[in-house]
Amino acid sequence: MNSIKFISPLSSRAFARLPKIPGVSMASGVAGIRHRGKKDLLLVEFTKNTTVAGVLTKNEVCGAPIRWCREILPKGKARALLVNSGNANVHTGKIGEQSVAQMAKEAARLTGCSSEEILVASTGVIGELFPITPILQTLPNLFGQDVDKTWKGAAEAIMTTDTYPKAAFRRTEIDGVPIKINGIAKGSGMIAPNMGTMLAFIFTDANLSSRLLSSLLKPAVESSFNCISVDGDTSTSDTCLLFATGKASNTRIINCSDKNILSFQNALNDIAMSLAMQIVRDGEGVTRVAEIQVLGAKSNESAKNVAKSVANSPLFKTALAAADPNWGRIVSAAGNAGEKVDQSLLTLCIGNELVAVNGALSPDYSEPRATRHMRSKTVRIELNLNQGKGKATVWGCDLTHQYIDINAGYRS
Amino acid sequence: MNSIKFISPLSSRAFARLPKIPGVSMASGVAGIRHRGKKDLLLVEFTKNTTVAGVLTKNEVCGAPIRWCREILPKGKARALLVNSGNANVHTGKIGEQSVAQMAKEAARLTGCSSEEILVASTGVIGELFPITPILQTLPNLFGQDVDKTWKGAAEAIMTTDTYPKAAFRRTEIDGVPIKINGIAKGSGMIAPNMGTMLAFIFTDANLSSRLLSSLLKPAVESSFNCISVDGDTSTSDTCLLFATGKASNTRIINCSDKNILSFQNALNDIAMSLAMQIVRDGEGVTRVAEIQVLGAKSNESAKNVAKSVANSPLFKTALAAADPNWGRIVSAAGNAGEKVDQSLLTLCIGNELVAVNGALSPDYSEPRATRHMRSKTVRIELNLNQGKGKATVWGCDLTHQYIDINAGYRS
Repeated sequence: MNSIKFISPLSSRAFARLPKIPGVSMASGVAGIRHRGKKDLLLVEFTKNTTVAGVLTKNEVCGAPIRWCREILPKGKARALLVNSGNANVHTGKIGEQSVAQMAKEAARLTGCSSEEILVASTGVIGELFPITPILQTLPNLFGQDVDKTWKGAAEAIMTTDTYPKAAFRRTEIDGVPIKINGIAKGSGMIAPNMGTMLAFIFTDANLSSRLLSSLLKPAVESSFNCISVDGDTSTSDTCLLFATGKASNTRIINCSDKNILSFQNALNDIAMSLAMQIVRDGEGVTRVAEIQVLGAKSNESAKNVAKSVANSPLFKTALAAADPNWGRIVSAAGNAGEKVDQSLLTLCIGNELVAVNGALSPDYSEPRATRHMRSKTVRIELNLNQGKGKATVWGCDLTHQYIDINAGYRS
Repeated sequence: MNSIKFISPLSSRAFARLPKIPGVSMASGVAGIRHRGKKDLLLVEFTKNTTVAGVLTKNEVCGAPIRWCREILPKGKARALLVNSGNANVHTGKIGEQSVAQMAKEAARLTGCSSEEILVASTGVIGELFPITPILQTLPNLFGQDVDKTWKGAAEAIMTTDTYPKAAFRRTEIDGVPIKINGIAKGSGMIAPNMGTMLAFIFTDANLSSRLLSSLLKPAVESSFNCISVDGDTSTSDTCLLFATGKASNTRIINCSDKNILSFQNALNDIAMSLAMQIVRDGEGVTRVAEIQVLGAKSNESAKNVAKSVANSPLFKTALAAADPNWGRIVSAAGNAGEKVDQSLLTLCIGNELVAVNGALSPDYSEPRATRHMRSKTVRIELNLNQGKGKATVWGCDLTHQYIDINAGYRS
């Protein structure tokens, strides 16, 4: 939440030029929640009959907006999404819950719909009194003409310690009808998503039921947001919502096994993956990303646990920062995952370099070659457990002084 | 493994003056395994009939010495303990296993006993070729007169990134007979012990069977070494061994529920706790320790998981470094432990300051008071889940630039 002094060296060069999505309009502005002059309030309006599905954090301690969304999501209807940054409205008791209800009520009044069609998300500091007054005061301004109506403004309004706004889009088709999907996200620290990352919102003009959206969103999240980690801290506010305005004239598809939905599912997976990668590449203090692929596990879940154990190991993360192919820390972290690992069977590659095999260092291992690969912006680690067919890929990042500086100074 | 430039600000002022334990003699020397001139080899000899029990790492990837100890510990007999620092002999394949056998064989030859009475432990870098030659060359020198035979020398010989040698002793009695217990330990990084920490060796002159030693050692380890965390990385080489020479003339005790063993158990618990605290206070880069007490959990195990989740949260650890009472990160980490937590029930205290109650900030909370306590060398966090009678205390430490510097430079 400090004023942004630098941009992650792994950032995308430019903000993607997102197309307009029929049925979606937006406005972002400054409520002054935490930092004077920073955009911190976003309202996205949807046409009637817009459907929605979402996945939310599994953290047992969660924000009031999470509980609100959990309650209204089963209805599957959305007329607006209201998001603020600067305060996460977490562990704020009854007052926090009343604040969400007030936000939804006011947005519903201005939009002309029911409160239960207003999705709400908040991100920022945890546990501090939620600033409902400036939000309620600023909200009506977002319905005026003189506000930022761009996707970039929207992506900026939801940022906290992020160093750049995050977005992705794909064009696809359903049964021959052209479809657009846009997504925006934020996240930089407290990133070890368990059901959706800090905040990600995806919008499409496709005509799809909320039940189908939900079936499509879950696998997309599972292999993208749920496979990244900046610091192993699952947030209290992880939220990923997918909205479909139905403005495209595709035939309605009921079943997610319908082959006409395949292209859409692929495009959605792509967007989720792109946003997830943008988040990990903006990990607090990041200078290097690791792509950790685990193969040959007893199950995909077991593979993911092993990959996450490596991604979250502070010793691996500091070695990554130093471009040190300290492979002993990788096998140690793999052995720590709470999964059965037979060290005599595992093979480890760093980049294309075979490092360990038959329970020991490979006789052909070249440390200079491994070091050269470790200096890449994206380091590839491949660990084959040779015990089964389970596999998973997890993306983590290094641990640097800057992570500490950002988080030791977050509230001061 | 860098040359030691500084001593942890939380270190004990002076090395404890350990008494002689009848039946135990030791010698430490320089084999030149990793750093010229640093003591790196320790031999402890025991009188005949010495019993031993141990607890070893649960990391699935473990060192060759761990497998050696696992095999011989059931016999419960010890004539010598041989320890080297500088190379952990982990993931070194068949050659690593042969090296342990060679070390044991040579020590057995020099001691005049069977290989199976030689306990072996190694600590240091993982995965590199084990330097058996200098060890075998140096070993006979340790049987000469001109070597360091002190406890301090022994504690120094097992250090890696430790900034000070660690030791503790207690005098106790069994059924009126005076008994001495000495312990030494090492550990600074890769500390999240799961059955004994990196290395801890405890010695007594009591006359106790190896089975009884084992019954006594397990609970002592469970509430001490297994309750500390520097970085959440469970080591491949965690080893805690307890040796009893039987030179004291106490009556032999068979059962650990015998009330005559109570005083001994308490003294042993004390030593284990003292050594564990010395390790966490020498955590890599440490400036501040957190004592995290969780009460009111459904079980003790559940309480420990919640406490560990807080202790290992990088966001909590960086806030601790900054003396920032960022309590939102504490409740978030508690919610992340994989245990049922009802946020409306939990109460959180930092020091004596009540911070959160009834699912929100306490109305009487004073941030200046909480900050004052956060500046202590040992910060007390008390989290009551108000769901049951389970409780646990875990000790963690802060995350600082120096942790990164130590671990980004460990091998270079």
